[in-house]
Amino acid sequence: MALPVRTNLRHVFRFIHQLNSPKRYMCAASTENKLPATEPPGGERVFSGIQPTGVPHLGNYLGAIENWVSLQNQYPSVLYSIVDLHSITQSQDPAQLRNNIVDMAASLLACGIDPERAILFQQSQVSEHAELSWILGCLTSMPRLRHLPQWKMKSKQKNEGSVGLYTYPVLQAADILLYKSTHVPVGEDQVQHLELAQDLARIFNNRYGDLFPEPRALMSSTRKVKSLRDPSAKMSKSDPNAMATVTITDSPDDIALKIRRAVTDFTSEVTFDPETRPGVSNLVTLHAAMATISVEDAVSQAKGLDTGVYKKLVTEAVIQRLTPIREEIERLRADRTHLEEMLARGTQRARELAAPVLREVRQRVGFC
Amino acid sequence: MALPVRTNLRHVFRFIHQLNSPKRYMCAASTENKLPATEPPGGERVFSGIQPTGVPHLGNYLGAIENWVSLQNQYPSVLYSIVDLHSITQSQDPAQLRNNIVDMAASLLACGIDPERAILFQQSQVSEHAELSWILGCLTSMPRLRHLPQWKMKSKQKNEGSVGLYTYPVLQAADILLYKSTHVPVGEDQVQHLELAQDLARIFNNRYGDLFPEPRALMSSTRKVKSLRDPSAKMSKSDPNAMATVTITDSPDDIALKIRRAVTDFTSEVTFDPETRPGVSNLVTLHAAMATISVEDAVSQAKGLDTGVYKKLVTEAVIQRLTPIREEIERLRADRTHLEEMLARGTQRARELAAPVLREVRQRVGFC
Repeated sequence: MALPVRTNLRHVFRFIHQLNSPKRYMCAASTENKLPATEPPGGERVFSGIQPTGVPHLGNYLGAIENWVSLQNQYPSVLYSIVDLHSITQSQDPAQLRNNIVDMAASLLACGIDPERAILFQQSQVSEHAELSWILGCLTSMPRLRHLPQWKMKSKQKNEGSVGLYTYPVLQAADILLYKSTHVPVGEDQVQHLELAQDLARIFNNRYGDLFPEPRALMSSTRKVKSLRDPSAKMSKSDPNAMATVTITDSPDDIALKIRRAVTDFTSEVTFDPETRPGVSNLVTLHAAMATISVEDAVSQAKGLDTGVYKKLVTEAVIQRLTPIREEIERLRADRTHLEEMLARGTQRARELAAPVLREVRQRVGFC
Repeated sequence: MALPVRTNLRHVFRFIHQLNSPKRYMCAASTENKLPATEPPGGERVFSGIQPTGVPHLGNYLGAIENWVSLQNQYPSVLYSIVDLHSITQSQDPAQLRNNIVDMAASLLACGIDPERAILFQQSQVSEHAELSWILGCLTSMPRLRHLPQWKMKSKQKNEGSVGLYTYPVLQAADILLYKSTHVPVGEDQVQHLELAQDLARIFNNRYGDLFPEPRALMSSTRKVKSLRDPSAKMSKSDPNAMATVTITDSPDDIALKIRRAVTDFTSEVTFDPETRPGVSNLVTLHAAMATISVEDAVSQAKGLDTGVYKKLVTEAVIQRLTPIREEIERLRADRTHLEEMLARGTQRARELAAPVLREVRQRVGFC
């Protein structure tokens, strides 16, 4: 059906105006044009982020990074971000943060993230994240964030947190949508945050026309690694007991000591039963994961061994897996220039994807 | 007093590292260097923002814009921003917003903002605003924003507002601090928002070392222009009664009609008493402001005239003042290319001031 003449004329005038507009260099993408360069090849793109906590521990490695390495070989376009803007929602020492960013980059590369397959970059160096976050924040109602589990938990610890802590799921949504990501690997604790990103994609698309795919969760069956000192708790960087956590750069001696001291129970036989025997089961999990065998195979290798002897087997598997990683991290750290250049290259590639999407967003919102 | 040797060595190593760092091209400014280019000349810089509501009305003109014109002649460095990022904290039609931005730019220039004296720019085109806003949000506690008057008012109207509406005083603080502004013209309703900017300058400086001046309020004794239909309310763009508001592009006939219909009272003599005679006093305010005479002179010119005849005098003063402004807006609108280029030039100059400050912020926070 033809539009009424007035409306048609308005379209014509707007088109003529766009042709003549000198602002096109600022807001280059027109709403009429598709942006094939920003569309993921094959229609699929994975995005994930990790906070720059420095050298990861085994919980990070088995819970996320190993999965990242596997995803980069399954999807045609993959972005992994060191999310330093998120990290400042908690207080950070600047010098420490600076080192942690570089250490996290070195660790990811040493663990197998391949910069030819995945774009590894630093969030704060791509200004579009904060910009899109502002725009999405204007589409998010205040109560929508109030019941998200991480705010409820962390704001209690801090006697009410900062505005950054409250709004960081919006920044997370911006991280994902900025690259028109279609798949996001998430743990159970992040499902509700991904739902916010899905909601915001829908809200934006409804209001301004289809732009963002609704990102889907890649639920990974990653292993949960427990503290070596308290197997009821997750292994954690912030654990005050150094014996509780194995970082991927620990020396073989440290690894041996920590596993020797790992809390088990009074039964000497090795079985896998996380409910009733969390300590020894955690060792089985570690063993299986590090030796890349099944839990059943790990238990069968432990047959006839008491937990003390089994710990040596676990130690051996951990050391064997981590030694090349530790050596690679040392090599990368020794040539910090090269490392920072690699990160800068990834950041440049991320910018090239982000810029046209944000230009399109700005135009649809009416900023240009 | 000398530092302990360990600390000294750490400084030396950090310095050597900085010399060798290839990331310097991303984060060029070192914490050791002052940034004279970003410091306001003469140590003073004025910043102010206005929402792109399209063509201003007399309330905007006399309440803010006239003062802006006067400030650009008093201070060595002045920035005026069309704050479109703020405008989307309320729902906006994109095409309307796009036009309103251009109309506001044309209006400001026609009212006397001189792009040689003041940097006139569009907020959303300078990505550093949103970036600094994120960082400052991480230094702002949630309760700090809850009691600010505009949130209390607007969130009630909207049955709880958006995250953008809640956090927009943080973006305002970023707008101001990004240029190391020292002076901010504010009305009474903005005093608490400026206090937040002052607090955030202090909090940032305490945590990361002195960087931001604490911006001071320029309390202007601007006249408050009332609705022509209800002199107990402010003149407002959103007034559903078109007769209540005179925009600066109204035709002489429209101006005459609106002032002829202006609500006064049953006393025909003209006096100035805003409490007991708000309607006629509003006309005196308008007359004095538009003819650039004192209120006393306006009242004395009205001696012997009844309000009906006086309205013609007021009409004449308004038309005389607005005619060249309206003609200039028409001229500017006719050459939209030129207008958009002027705005783009201002935006470029704002970016040049903002970029090194944000680089410094990023470095101090530990992002590079």
